[in-house]
Amino acid sequence: MRGAVIYAPGDVRFEDRDDPTIVDPTDAVIRLTASCVCGSDLWDYRGIDSVTQPTPMGHEYVGVVEEVGDDVHTLEPGQFVVGSFFASDNTCPICQAGYQSSCVHREYVGAGGAQAEYLRVPLADGTLVATPDLPPDDLVPSLLAASDVLGTGWFGAVAAEVTPGTTVAVVGDGAVGLLGILAASQLGAERIIAMSRHTPRQKLALEFGATDIVTERGDDGVARVKDLTDGLGADSVIEAVGTQESMLQAIRCTRPGGHVGYVGVAHGVALPGEELFYSHVHLHGGPAPVRRFLPDLIDRIWNQRIDPGKVFDLDLPLAQVAEGYRAMDERRAVKTLLRP
Amino acid sequence: MRGAVIYAPGDVRFEDRDDPTIVDPTDAVIRLTASCVCGSDLWDYRGIDSVTQPTPMGHEYVGVVEEVGDDVHTLEPGQFVVGSFFASDNTCPICQAGYQSSCVHREYVGAGGAQAEYLRVPLADGTLVATPDLPPDDLVPSLLAASDVLGTGWFGAVAAEVTPGTTVAVVGDGAVGLLGILAASQLGAERIIAMSRHTPRQKLALEFGATDIVTERGDDGVARVKDLTDGLGADSVIEAVGTQESMLQAIRCTRPGGHVGYVGVAHGVALPGEELFYSHVHLHGGPAPVRRFLPDLIDRIWNQRIDPGKVFDLDLPLAQVAEGYRAMDERRAVKTLLRP
Repeated sequence: MRGAVIYAPGDVRFEDRDDPTIVDPTDAVIRLTASCVCGSDLWDYRGIDSVTQPTPMGHEYVGVVEEVGDDVHTLEPGQFVVGSFFASDNTCPICQAGYQSSCVHREYVGAGGAQAEYLRVPLADGTLVATPDLPPDDLVPSLLAASDVLGTGWFGAVAAEVTPGTTVAVVGDGAVGLLGILAASQLGAERIIAMSRHTPRQKLALEFGATDIVTERGDDGVARVKDLTDGLGADSVIEAVGTQESMLQAIRCTRPGGHVGYVGVAHGVALPGEELFYSHVHLHGGPAPVRRFLPDLIDRIWNQRIDPGKVFDLDLPLAQVAEGYRAMDERRAVKTLLRP
Repeated sequence: MRGAVIYAPGDVRFEDRDDPTIVDPTDAVIRLTASCVCGSDLWDYRGIDSVTQPTPMGHEYVGVVEEVGDDVHTLEPGQFVVGSFFASDNTCPICQAGYQSSCVHREYVGAGGAQAEYLRVPLADGTLVATPDLPPDDLVPSLLAASDVLGTGWFGAVAAEVTPGTTVAVVGDGAVGLLGILAASQLGAERIIAMSRHTPRQKLALEFGATDIVTERGDDGVARVKDLTDGLGADSVIEAVGTQESMLQAIRCTRPGGHVGYVGVAHGVALPGEELFYSHVHLHGGPAPVRRFLPDLIDRIWNQRIDPGKVFDLDLPLAQVAEGYRAMDERRAVKTLLRP
């Protein structure tokens, strides 16, 4: 098969790779219908995370089951499935508590490289969720979004304890931040403040349910959010970037007793203990347990209650994966969808 | 009147000070029945927090209302009251949400120095809670504990989401940690792991409801807690120290999806973002909103359901306050009670 491999920062190649096979009896192999480029892939592409050897890329995927191992009981070839970037058994106490991305048997599905034609998915019974039927083409982008960016934005909103009537601020206007806005709206937030200075992203934010746009960043952004919330700060803040600046901005935008849900993969963050102590916020986040939300998200998409696929503003054949990275790196695209 | 003043690390003096008076119409002045020395006072005493000028000390107090301002409506002279270290109006949105120690009008009561004969309490209606009657002498230590260490340990347990049936670990065996154990027990924890290497404190921990003692610290302590919890970590961990080591120990003792309630005043803490991200814990804490819990705590003490006053293992006349500090600094005492 063919798939994407990163060799060095800025150097993503589309090349021949071995076809994946069943390794463990709990594996499935799926034929990918679509995959995409994640904001977190850019950490490698930009050299912020080091690339030490040629590495298959991609960890967001939907596709059709091609083959299952002898110990897979809930799936069969031909089913259309959505999975997440961490494989999970979905039965251990951590999974049962809803933290499948910290499953005691978790494996990183992305190790197989989902920007490809086929993918091996470990722990298939616990990881993959089948759709009710083969989806129509126009639902594929949204189902693909559920695999990571929607699931992650959703976890950000849940971790930030968004409930009906709350005021929410969202730090970060990438795909995860934008889908955090959609999640907050679905969870009943009364007011959603999107922090964004990019016109096309602001437009999408408003379509997904944002009620206010704040273009300022840092201290000025915090001051604007305070202005909009009677000087108190937002009840819930979703952090979807992962830098020191964005984390502090999120904490400072939150009212005492409020909640920060942080889902941007942390890079170079060291939270000052004294400030955190006196901020009185709740802090929760980490790698999204997408599996927890998949059945509900698939249901909302299947019934066309949400259209998260709108975050894909560039649709390319898989063979052009390198251009997909370039476009996101240069912020010409919010998110690139790839079709084998 | 006479009261304690710190001049420099290790230099606490008992000396003449001006009698406090009503400054604002919402003030009360109380005649102190008892006060005490806090673990956080030792930050000054040990020179970790700098002492730049002679400073009245003490922020934990119970006493009898002596005088009230014209705008105090719920209290009258002669009532026995318990207060907290932060004055709060108890009506602003932050107070109403239960975060009185971040009240938009908060004032630090300790500025007046409660290790003294009299104390001015701002925002008296919102800050002070009267007992049903004048308490018998033997309840005074427990009511005094409610003013800070019990309220703070209780907040630690609530912030760590201790609920019936949970497994709790407690980092720190000072008065707050010990009363965090009592709180966890009252809130229905099934298993309470006290991390302590001091025999007298272990004994008190067991009296307050600890079911297991772990004497190891750091990585070894974490490994022991994991051993005791099927390799997963505790559901809830109360952090009652405030150092980098204790915060990391608390986070690492917590299972993914579990809760850390941190109430040790943070000193020199910088939390590594990436570790926090992948830990999947909930983090909440800060200066305890003791006022939120006071009515319930007073009720439990009044009805002799709890005896938090046991943390006071040294009872001195106020005039010997300097010895009270020395004994705690040298760990000869867990906590010193002072009677004017």
